[in-house]
Amino acid sequence: MDTYSSRALQAAVEAFAQLPGIGRKTALRLVLHLLKQDAGTADSFSEALRELHRNVVYCTHCHNITDKSVCSICESPRRNRALVCVVEDIRDVMAIENTGQYHGLYHVLGGIISPMEGIGPSDLTIDSLSGRLQADPGIREVILALSTTMEGDTTGFYIYRMLQAFDLKISVIARGIAIGDELEYADEVTLGRSIVNRTAYDVNTVK
Amino acid sequence: MDTYSSRALQAAVEAFAQLPGIGRKTALRLVLHLLKQDAGTADSFSEALRELHRNVVYCTHCHNITDKSVCSICESPRRNRALVCVVEDIRDVMAIENTGQYHGLYHVLGGIISPMEGIGPSDLTIDSLSGRLQADPGIREVILALSTTMEGDTTGFYIYRMLQAFDLKISVIARGIAIGDELEYADEVTLGRSIVNRTAYDVNTVK
Repeated sequence: MDTYSSRALQAAVEAFAQLPGIGRKTALRLVLHLLKQDAGTADSFSEALRELHRNVVYCTHCHNITDKSVCSICESPRRNRALVCVVEDIRDVMAIENTGQYHGLYHVLGGIISPMEGIGPSDLTIDSLSGRLQADPGIREVILALSTTMEGDTTGFYIYRMLQAFDLKISVIARGIAIGDELEYADEVTLGRSIVNRTAYDVNTVK
Repeated sequence: MDTYSSRALQAAVEAFAQLPGIGRKTALRLVLHLLKQDAGTADSFSEALRELHRNVVYCTHCHNITDKSVCSICESPRRNRALVCVVEDIRDVMAIENTGQYHGLYHVLGGIISPMEGIGPSDLTIDSLSGRLQADPGIREVILALSTTMEGDTTGFYIYRMLQAFDLKISVIARGIAIGDELEYADEVTLGRSIVNRTAYDVNTVK
């Protein structure tokens, strides 16, 4: 453990070093960068962090991060309210929104079932999803858009079983060879799945 | 440019993303991590950043970062006051201190001459080094411990010329094959330098 010549320096380095993927050397580099900027930069950084927990609100419907109690997606009259896409966190919402291909609603779990990290179903917004489906019979399809990892599959299966109580379509996002990828370099599980789940040839989507 | 569903989230992401080596995706990951912790974590992070510029002091002698006006190294009666080692920043001080092999004083330049980044000699503490040498005739040797880059060499040469006005020994840290490295993988400039600057065989240092 390094010792620093200044307690203020040490406190700032330790604050950065507790973040995932940032070691003490990187933390020191970041703090020295801030010290070279004028004090206003560190002050506004400090202010942004202070306001973070105070001003970030989770949408009461889909648990997406927002400024008000219902997020702009849940509020929008232009979204298809029959579709709910279940994702792990806001980054997935942003990634799907960026495609411009999805016009339904979301349900943000706020994490993924992970016994290793002590995260169980009750830590996620799964009960809220169930309540949402009970309250809104207009929802006709739930799309599971989770990572293809052990945790993602476990979470997907848990939600799938919960969804059996409802009369709706359950789908998962397509797995297959990424567009632009070469077949010979694809892993065999993905390639196998892409053959089993082949789709009808559509001249409009093949560019 | 991504748009975020919350202004507080956006402000925090932008604060992280302005740091060197941190892109917007990493910034978002860090902010989501902080949001998963309780508010106290972000608050103490915020506090550490707020106090950074207020409480960090630069040693009036060597410009090292410290809590008081003279740093613990300059203050220590156990350091050899005849030696001053010139380094770029506090990370180099920490690296040299960690070796336990140097017992002199330091002079922290606070950067390196870099026309590309608009950093000239007047942005560094070179004048202060000159003033320090004038005020303290007890300093007998200045050791240049700068990076072997274009900028490091330029800075070293600039200081070397400035030091001509003083009657003292000027040295540079040894360049050569790192301990544990294999000769065949060393670059030829380093290997060449290590042959030209060979030292007497000392049975005590060869382990």
